[in-house]
Amino acid sequence: MLPVDLPGTVRDALLAPLVDHHCHGVRRDDLSRAQFELLIGEGGVPAPPGTTHFDTPSGAAVRRWCAPLLDLEPHAPPAVYLARRAELGAGEVNRRLLAGAGVVAFLVDSSDRQGPQDADVLSAAEMGRHGGAAADELVRIEQIERDVAETAQLGVDYLDALADELAARAARAVGLKTVIGSLMGLDLDPARPTRGAVIAAANRRLADPKELLTDPILLRYLLWSAVDVARERGLPVQFHSGFGADPAGLSAFVRELQPLGVPVILLHCHPYHRQAAYLAGAFPHVYVDVGLAPPYTAASARVVDELLELAPFHKQLFSSCCRGLAETGYLGALYYRHALAAALGSRLATGEWSTSDAARVAHMIGSGNARRIYRL
Amino acid sequence: MLPVDLPGTVRDALLAPLVDHHCHGVRRDDLSRAQFELLIGEGGVPAPPGTTHFDTPSGAAVRRWCAPLLDLEPHAPPAVYLARRAELGAGEVNRRLLAGAGVVAFLVDSSDRQGPQDADVLSAAEMGRHGGAAADELVRIEQIERDVAETAQLGVDYLDALADELAARAARAVGLKTVIGSLMGLDLDPARPTRGAVIAAANRRLADPKELLTDPILLRYLLWSAVDVARERGLPVQFHSGFGADPAGLSAFVRELQPLGVPVILLHCHPYHRQAAYLAGAFPHVYVDVGLAPPYTAASARVVDELLELAPFHKQLFSSCCRGLAETGYLGALYYRHALAAALGSRLATGEWSTSDAARVAHMIGSGNARRIYRL
Amino acid sequence: MLPVDLPGTVRDALLAPLVDHHCHGVRRDDLSRAQFELLIGEGGVPAPPGTTHFDTPSGAAVRRWCAPLLDLEPHAPPAVYLARRAELGAGEVNRRLLAGAGVVAFLVDSSDRQGPQDADVLSAAEMGRHGGAAADELVRIEQIERDVAETAQLGVDYLDALADELAARAARAVGLKTVIGSLMGLDLDPARPTRGAVIAAANRRLADPKELLTDPILLRYLLWSAVDVARERGLPVQFHSGFGADPAGLSAFVRELQPLGVPVILLHCHPYHRQAAYLAGAFPHVYVDVGLAPPYTAASARVVDELLELAPFHKQLFSSCCRGLAETGYLGALYYRHALAAALGSRLATGEWSTSDAARVAHMIGSGNARRIYRL
Repeated sequence: MLPVDLPGTVRDALLAPLVDHHCHGVRRDDLSRAQFELLIGEGGVPAPPGTTHFDTPSGAAVRRWCAPLLDLEPHAPPAVYLARRAELGAGEVNRRLLAGAGVVAFLVDSSDRQGPQDADVLSAAEMGRHGGAAADELVRIEQIERDVAETAQLGVDYLDALADELAARAARAVGLKTVIGSLMGLDLDPARPTRGAVIAAANRRLADPKELLTDPILLRYLLWSAVDVARERGLPVQFHSGFGADPAGLSAFVRELQPLGVPVILLHCHPYHRQAAYLAGAFPHVYVDVGLAPPYTAASARVVDELLELAPFHKQLFSSCCRGLAETGYLGALYYRHALAAALGSRLATGEWSTSDAARVAHMIGSGNARRIYRL
Repeated sequence: MLPVDLPGTVRDALLAPLVDHHCHGVRRDDLSRAQFELLIGEGGVPAPPGTTHFDTPSGAAVRRWCAPLLDLEPHAPPAVYLARRAELGAGEVNRRLLAGAGVVAFLVDSSDRQGPQDADVLSAAEMGRHGGAAADELVRIEQIERDVAETAQLGVDYLDALADELAARAARAVGLKTVIGSLMGLDLDPARPTRGAVIAAANRRLADPKELLTDPILLRYLLWSAVDVARERGLPVQFHSGFGADPAGLSAFVRELQPLGVPVILLHCHPYHRQAAYLAGAFPHVYVDVGLAPPYTAASARVVDELLELAPFHKQLFSSCCRGLAETGYLGALYYRHALAAALGSRLATGEWSTSDAARVAHMIGSGNARRIYRL
Repeated sequence: MLPVDLPGTVRDALLAPLVDHHCHGVRRDDLSRAQFELLIGEGGVPAPPGTTHFDTPSGAAVRRWCAPLLDLEPHAPPAVYLARRAELGAGEVNRRLLAGAGVVAFLVDSSDRQGPQDADVLSAAEMGRHGGAAADELVRIEQIERDVAETAQLGVDYLDALADELAARAARAVGLKTVIGSLMGLDLDPARPTRGAVIAAANRRLADPKELLTDPILLRYLLWSAVDVARERGLPVQFHSGFGADPAGLSAFVRELQPLGVPVILLHCHPYHRQAAYLAGAFPHVYVDVGLAPPYTAASARVVDELLELAPFHKQLFSSCCRGLAETGYLGALYYRHALAAALGSRLATGEWSTSDAARVAHMIGSGNARRIYRL
């Protein structure tokens, strides 16, 4: 299972069920090759003529590691893989791959289910059932704002409805999530916007409620509203970070949050994971995710190893960032375990760490830290 | 030849002739030690008193790998190396090293040949003859602008002449190249500048045509003019990136180019190659170069390995970025092959990839992708 | 001692006494567990409930490597380690660890000794005595400014006093140090501020002299004053860099300094060490530190290896960045030696370097470069 030879307690710790603290639902329907390729690729567009999204790190990983779960040889050609996937049917494939991930609890951002494709994506509860695991909800705050913007009439109503809806949704969730980083970057002015500025912005917003929200005043207002709810309910706030959203920009905001005691969880972070590790070391309420978005799982070995030499062990969390394809959930867990196995193996081989510390840290990152922070 | 033991097909794929899709001419004259050291060093200034540019990663690489091609032992002392180089003469040294690179086609940015040193640098055709390879031209657009600025009288003439000259030079080239990144960074406003603003800027420019062009309006206008020509002729545009020019800043511009179908090729990229890999994964028309500028070839193993875990395989290209010394062309090819050999070797050893995929990807990156993009 | 098998001359070069060109004093008093944990952690705040700063890369390193110097088994539990530390007493612990570092000269930034804890931190001379080494002073220029601001009455007096005090302190030091990077970042306007602007800013400053200096005009004025003194006395200027202070931003300033011949030494740099390596390669007067701040020593292997493939060998310097705990001085030296041993070992194993070059470079980075630059 694991690529290196390890003492029994460390191996057991690595193979113990994981808390996948950030994932999305996967498609329930049978997919054509074109649909499947779009979900492997990152840009949401087909590969250029003469090429295929299978010729990517994630495409190669699917053929290597997922093929055996569909009873195929490793490295099965794309056509063979997809034929077998169709033969088994999406339900069976999802069950095999999600259960194969060895996850005890999925924390699911279900906002992909909004809009026309609702029915095509598994709900949080269904993710749990397919994977033989518990499941809880994460609330993506920009999704709430979109729902509110589409129904509110006046700026004041909008603000009230936002507060109500955030509170109502948070009451059923284990954490909040923001994608402000991909909407305006993470170099945030830490001050709360004034009420006057917010109402003016809200009135502008309501003139065009279908647009993607990019107004920095409203985005920051939304974030602060989420922080207030998170503080009240003892919930952490997840921040999407990574390309275009360097978590280093979040320093001032994070410092502002420190007295409030709201945990800040930095998701993905690659290629800025070293900056995220710095924040996790410097601030007691900041955490860092060692899970990588599907296109980057092949980079896990390097990233997991670097975080282990840079960030406190009680600040690191596993996630698969599974999305669309159950393959990504399986690969996220598999590459995480392989990467941590290699990192611990080399520390044990040189005597840098003891066996009991290695096993203990594997438990912390795999599930213990998430149980503590999300109060599971 | 290669530092790791590999299956025959993979070894053959690695040793197959390369397309060096971005290089410069090398000096044809015999060089003094001071001249040679200036060309190893990066800043164009002599090493501080008591030190030598041979005590750098590139200096060590020359002594290790080029010495044997001049019939010397590996690690020959600098004085011995330079004495033997002088004895053989620049012509023979250039032939041995360029042919030793195992290149089937050089794509050459010859703009270094402008100015007082013209005669000292091999032309594209000469690079090909010395290296036993085909050779094609790349057009550096900022060089064209300089030529035009020195002869035009009025802003309007300047714009017409620029368009004419770009079209004429592109007709004889396989690609365009811009160094806008080192002149104003890559954080580009993606909008086309207005004609009024351009003419005003052009008139200012003509008051001082010998100056290095740094006006952002003209630089962006020049780039858009190049894009128009590239689109018309089906040519890719190479972007110099790297220190001071993070390709992440190019996102908005690249998005603007997507519907035009003009391939964008990110050169060097180090230390921002992870950001470049992201763009190559997210946009169908973006490519990333695994060749490093000469001072960084020693870093190839790490960079090639990281790109292989981050970027689509059909988006990666080899280049040597050879410049001034034929040693840099030889070392670029050698370090690329060693790095890819190590990266593929470790994937084969762990069963992560199949032998046939490894050989196929080596062919793609070494020459196949370049043949497709440059239509060679 | 060293984790890899190396030829005798290389081993000897690695184990030869080091010049630790940047460190701080350590605490002379016996420390409670809470005090000790605060000095392992980075943010100066206790670990969150249910966690400990021992569960960090530096905490693990203390237990692994320092425990044996206190006659304990490697990986001793925190409580056992701290009990033994208390039993031996801080003086004996400091002597064992500082002497264990194998340092021939400490260059000490003693500005931590200012303020209420003065007596608790060893002076430069005491660091030397405890470590069986020579010791010299580094002058942190922002500390001088604070002293001057607290006594001056008028802007003009302030400027005179600053000049006098810089000159007087520099006369007793081997180098100057600035933390401007952590006060306003390193993206510096390279121009000298005008005298009028400086006097106006100084008068504002004197209205609130206890505040941390963050005025960009005064900070840049202070830096230029330091450069003038450094130039007159032939001293280098150390720049704190790293998280929040990317040395890439320093390019324009560094270019301005080039004709003055004042050496610029970039400290820490992580995670921007590749950018620092670029500057060290491009500018004859720029140097780069391979020592990492204590929380990052576990990352040394990677950073030392990367710098060795990117920066000139005559531009790299060792430091421990020791602070507060003698453990950090010992670990800084140990991880540096292990990291360089591994990096040289792999270059020797592949034949990339010769034995004599490896030994020579180890001497250069360990002490030779520092002796040359600081004129020790």
